[in-house]
This record gives sequence, structure tokens and C-alpha cells, in this order.
Amino acid sequence: MGLPEVAPGDDLARLLVEAAQRQRLVLEQGDVFVVAQKVVSKAEGRIVRLDSIKPSERAEQWAAEYQKDPRAIPTVAVHDDVTRGVERGVIIAKTRHGFVCANAGVDVSNVPGGTALLLPENPDRSASTLQEQLVRAFGVHVAVIISDTFGRPWREGLVNVALGVAGMMPLVDYRGQRDTHGKMLQATVIALADELAAAGGLVMGKLNRVPAAVLQGLAMSQGKGSGRDLIRPAERDLFR
Amino acid sequence: MGLPEVAPGDDLARLLVEAAQRQRLVLEQGDVFVVAQKVVSKAEGRIVRLDSIKPSERAEQWAAEYQKDPRAIPTVAVHDDVTRGVERGVIIAKTRHGFVCANAGVDVSNVPGGTALLLPENPDRSASTLQEQLVRAFGVHVAVIISDTFGRPWREGLVNVALGVAGMMPLVDYRGQRDTHGKMLQATVIALADELAAAGGLVMGKLNRVPAAVLQGLAMSQGKGSGRDLIRPAERDLFR
Repeated sequence: MGLPEVAPGDDLARLLVEAAQRQRLVLEQGDVFVVAQKVVSKAEGRIVRLDSIKPSERAEQWAAEYQKDPRAIPTVAVHDDVTRGVERGVIIAKTRHGFVCANAGVDVSNVPGGTALLLPENPDRSASTLQEQLVRAFGVHVAVIISDTFGRPWREGLVNVALGVAGMMPLVDYRGQRDTHGKMLQATVIALADELAAAGGLVMGKLNRVPAAVLQGLAMSQGKGSGRDLIRPAERDLFR
Repeated sequence: MGLPEVAPGDDLARLLVEAAQRQRLVLEQGDVFVVAQKVVSKAEGRIVRLDSIKPSERAEQWAAEYQKDPRAIPTVAVHDDVTRGVERGVIIAKTRHGFVCANAGVDVSNVPGGTALLLPENPDRSASTLQEQLVRAFGVHVAVIISDTFGRPWREGLVNVALGVAGMMPLVDYRGQRDTHGKMLQATVIALADELAAAGGLVMGKLNRVPAAVLQGLAMSQGKGSGRDLIRPAERDLFR
């Protein structure tokens, strides 16, 4: 759904409700709002002026090592996270939330020059707040996913993933259930919230002002849920 | 879309066409068929009897190291790929195609006991063959994605991804385009085929016999495409 340009302090829930009304959407129990991190961060005022930032010691180190201006490394200038590598100025870093992503999720596109947009401080809390407001406005149980496009190991290209989740369980666990031949399924936990975020990504695009999508007809089962459930603890991660 | 149980030699394209007719689907230019690897592999007869397999030397080594029966390590018994770790009997391995996934994509669920299902030999070729048949049957340009659910580093749960692609470009490159503030977008290549596969995964499930999905209304731009475009060369992979 299209939204007007979002500014700090805007009531994002109201903008989403108005957009749904403009599109004459009839919301039903179990529908899912996928909302781009970008508009959530903007509404929450997570914008910083780059010239207000004193580069961290690590930023200075990286800048020296990669022959860059420390100002050109927004991530390290803003965050001070575990960094893993630099490619064309893109730093793969782990954010305080635990997400591993380019530039620690700090974005300098689609914001005014000289500024950067940070991830929401707590994407689950952002999702919960939005979800409560949307449930109140529509009178049915809807779920909310705050999403962003992340790169990933092994595979090319970015995909939209779920950072914050409210009103649904982000993982569906098939373990212990039986397949059509009566055998127990093993190791089959589906990252439903990430698949929903990716589906939302199909209509959200990068250039057009469509920072939210409504997925209908899936009748999600309710649940508290949390985007943190999707972060794999390092000690359980064989892939890395 | 629901399909009957698929057996070696079955005409999968015909089964998909019949399923579309049963659901009275009207296919339009740019619609996308997402088809589970499982039914493609079955139709292609990629089933092996485990007792016909002589475990490889590496399987014997892993079995000894992890105190397992080498027969219980189907991946290594069948493939001889780069392995990265073992967790509850699941081996993270790189297939000959270049995919990094659990058990090298070898599946012992949803097949008769004592057998295992291998990935298609060439998922792009499988996709192309299906796509040509579907285009002929429906008279419009549709794209085909052969998908499977893969785990991934950093994040919990499996998501459906694209192994083979035909009739569309799997990556959308926004680099060089300008955002709403006139700034050049950098490092923004979206893995469209993986997002489509994930969206298909939402309706395909694991337990019900819905091994294919049709995504409509997206008007994909045509292109030759290949699932190989989604495999990131190790030397360019900062995430791993």
C-alpha cells in the first residue's frame, strides 16, 4: 500500500489505516501487515545527522585499513558492533539486536543528504505498538511484521526478512508430525515470518513509495511471537 | 495447487495444467509457477534405494566421528560434497550444483521407507522443460521456479528458495537508479526469485499435498534467467 512521505512523529498506524481505506481493503482475522523498517524508523525519528557523529575508534581503524574517510563508514560511525568485512564500502556487521546485515542496517538512501536512518531501537516493540493500534482500528486480529531487505551468505541478492513480529508466531514447527508416508518429520521448522516478509517484498519494491503490504487469505494462527525467535544463536549455527 | 502423488515418469506439466483447470485459474502473461523440488525429482525418477548405496569413505569417516551408522547419513552416502558440520544427523553440505543446504538436499521424508530423494540433476533444465510445456499449454508467457526449503546462517527456520529458474530474471538490479531523494542506490540487488519462492512456500506447506503455487498479478519481466545466478561465489561472500 502506498503511503505519503513519513516524517518523525507521524502516526504510522493512522497512515496505514487510511491507506487501507483508500484501497477499500476489508481486513480479516489473521491478515498480516508487512511494514518496511524504513517508515517505522522515520516515524520513530531514528534519523541522525552524519556530521553530528564522532567516528568510533573502530571506524577510524576500518577507515585507515580500507583507505576510506571514517565518515564514509556510517555503520561504524554510528554503531560499534562486530564487523565481519568490507566490500565496496558496505560493512557486514552484527547489530545490537543480533541481526547480521550490511552496514548494521544503517541506511543512507531514501533519506535527506547528510543523514542516516537507523533500525528501530526495538523492532518487536515497534511491531507490537502498531499491531495494537491496527487491531483497535480494524476490530479484527491482524499481525504485524517490521521488515528490511538483508543480504545472506551463500546466495546472491537481498531478500525481505522479518525484524519485528507481533500477533503471530514467526516459526512453524512441523517436528514430530508425520508425512504422507507416516514418517516423522525432522528438522522442519519453517520461518513463516520471513516467508511473509519476502512475499510482502514482492509488492514493496525499492523505488516506488510502497512501504507496506497486506497479506490476506492466509489466516495466520495468533500468538505472541517475536522477531528475536528468528535470530539463530551462534552456538547452534552450523551454516556459518 | 494440489496434485496427486507423483511417480517416476509422470508428466508433471500435464498434472500442473490439469490442476490449474480444476481450480479454474486463468493464467496471464508474467504469472509464476513455483514448483516444489520434491515433485520434480519424483517425476524425474531421482529416487535411490538406500540399501543399494555403498557408503563413501567420507560417510564412513563421519559415521565413525559422530557414532552413527553410515547408512544414517544419506547425504554422504549419496553425494561426496564439501561437508561443514553435523547436527542431530543433519549434515550441512555443498551440492554439486553449488547449493549449501542440509543433507545436500537429499530427502528421506515423503518418500517410501528405505529410499531417498535427490535434488534434480539440473534444476534449471527441469525448470526450462516445464516452462516450455506450460507456455505451450496456456498460450501465455509464464515463468517457472523449482524451489526447496533451505536453512540459512544467522537465522532460525527454513525458507523456500529458488533452485531452478526459467522464463524470468532471478535478480532485479536497482544499482544506478535513484531514490526519492535523487541519490544513487547502491548494493541493491533483490533476489526476486527467492522472494517468489518464499511467497509460494506460504501456500505449499509441508504436510498437505500442495507442491505447487501460482503467483499472479506480478507481471514478471521476461528473461532467460538461471538459478545459478543466485549462488554467490565464495570469493565474493563477506557474510560467511
